[in-house]
Amino acid sequence: MKYGYGVDLGGTTVKMGLFSDGGRLLDKWEIDTDVSNGGVNIPTDIGRSILADMNKHSFSRSDYLGVGIGVPGQVWPDGTADAVNLGWRRLPIIGQLEELTGLRAVGDNDANTAAMGEYWQGGGKGCKSLVLVTLGTGVGGGIILDGKCLQGAHRAGGEIGHIPVNPGETRLCGCGNRGCLEQYASATGCARLAMDALAGSGAPSTLRSERKVDARAVWDAAKAGDGLALEIAGRFCDILARGIATVANTVDPEVIVIGGGVSRAGQLLIDMTAERYRRYAFNPCKNTPIVLAKLGNDAGMYGCVANLL
Amino acid sequence: MKYGYGVDLGGTTVKMGLFSDGGRLLDKWEIDTDVSNGGVNIPTDIGRSILADMNKHSFSRSDYLGVGIGVPGQVWPDGTADAVNLGWRRLPIIGQLEELTGLRAVGDNDANTAAMGEYWQGGGKGCKSLVLVTLGTGVGGGIILDGKCLQGAHRAGGEIGHIPVNPGETRLCGCGNRGCLEQYASATGCARLAMDALAGSGAPSTLRSERKVDARAVWDAAKAGDGLALEIAGRFCDILARGIATVANTVDPEVIVIGGGVSRAGQLLIDMTAERYRRYAFNPCKNTPIVLAKLGNDAGMYGCVANLL
Repeated sequence: MKYGYGVDLGGTTVKMGLFSDGGRLLDKWEIDTDVSNGGVNIPTDIGRSILADMNKHSFSRSDYLGVGIGVPGQVWPDGTADAVNLGWRRLPIIGQLEELTGLRAVGDNDANTAAMGEYWQGGGKGCKSLVLVTLGTGVGGGIILDGKCLQGAHRAGGEIGHIPVNPGETRLCGCGNRGCLEQYASATGCARLAMDALAGSGAPSTLRSERKVDARAVWDAAKAGDGLALEIAGRFCDILARGIATVANTVDPEVIVIGGGVSRAGQLLIDMTAERYRRYAFNPCKNTPIVLAKLGNDAGMYGCVANLL
Repeated sequence: MKYGYGVDLGGTTVKMGLFSDGGRLLDKWEIDTDVSNGGVNIPTDIGRSILADMNKHSFSRSDYLGVGIGVPGQVWPDGTADAVNLGWRRLPIIGQLEELTGLRAVGDNDANTAAMGEYWQGGGKGCKSLVLVTLGTGVGGGIILDGKCLQGAHRAGGEIGHIPVNPGETRLCGCGNRGCLEQYASATGCARLAMDALAGSGAPSTLRSERKVDARAVWDAAKAGDGLALEIAGRFCDILARGIATVANTVDPEVIVIGGGVSRAGQLLIDMTAERYRRYAFNPCKNTPIVLAKLGNDAGMYGCVANLL
């Protein structure tokens, strides 16, 4: 048995875990992300934390596969990384981690490592290909084909949040375009769909008495049978289903995994999306399973270790 | 130097070519496709034609890479093929070709071999990844990533003709869904867009005096500066651009190649599509080149030989 460290680097915390090569999470912990000084202290903080953990065990150096890291940005083939939110610009993260720990290091974008994690030990375990759709503040994605992450010629592989789904949209997406999937099928998109529905309809709804109508409130009300909330949820799932059908018709994965904060809505979200997906998907892909992500916030760490295998 | 045979099997003719491994087409010819008796004579006809060509040359058996075939259907890993239009159902085409010619044989779907051909020696030559969009009676596609064709879990990889682009469509697509890309961005789709525009507008147009308003008439009139034809062409390219942007945001290819009968409209089609594509594509993919296919009807044969390399 060999061991690997998975490091999921976020803007506020760094999630770290020790895994067996068989995919067992043996221990996990977090440290703060120090974004001061353009994030230059981050590699040292991570390296020290790994060294401290290595000292707790009596493994020899050859027992380790290495350190995998997921970065909220790009990791380039030369081992440098860009990450706007951390202040990183071509920071040589891979070389620094190798020097600090004495272990081999590999890195990738954090959406890709999450997809890789769900592929290895989560909702796509046992499958050869997978699309992960992450419904959070925005919509992210990652595509794994034959065990390899689809990076893309400009590192935009799996950026399905910016699929154009509504040519009539007048509001701008964060990316500068109009009518992107992310403008509807994210937590913020769900809240916006709710605002529009509440303003455009006189129907009674428990949502009208909510102090804050966010995605969670919509899905809670939908689960409780609120008619207007179910309508909003239906529109959310319809747009999401069209986006997923589009991706499925293009890359035809074995399974589609839904993760991110909004996926806490659970099986109702899956069922409503799957029903609509079957309307839009091309015949051979109509029965592609749509399942919930299984690893939650740990997916990235898992994927970082999968990248070491 | 080695040699390979490329066999592009269609419903009426079989296009055959002898290639060098460097990608030169040395000779090409056609034979009729005999669809009688469930297409059982096709393998023998192809085998005989290859043997006759081999007899014209003094190459030894080891000078040949083999025979690659593209089938209007599926070629399965066990070497059998399904092709509805030929009457094939699990016909053991690969084994039969190997027995008949004494050469190694490989096969794939014809849309995939066309993509492989454009990747090897056509519009994508020198690139690592490519999406081929074929605008014919329908819309077909093929995706090549790192030199390998994306097959998909249900052999539906690259079936971008059935991307849902218009949830409001009431007319059925041939696939049974509504609002597929193919309903607009194909030759038949272009003719339908033209009918709708002519019926819905009183604007003068040279198209009104055409006996038959097909895709060719629309593009000819557009090139001659006809206002209504340019509007129809604009709508055609807008929908096509959205479809392409969707695919680009998903797989992020190095180049997008446009082929098929409608692509004979040429550079105007490319320019009008590219301009709209840049509106819909995600930032990193905005400058992905969109180019015309280069190999025309020979693309499939080229790809069949590329599959032997």
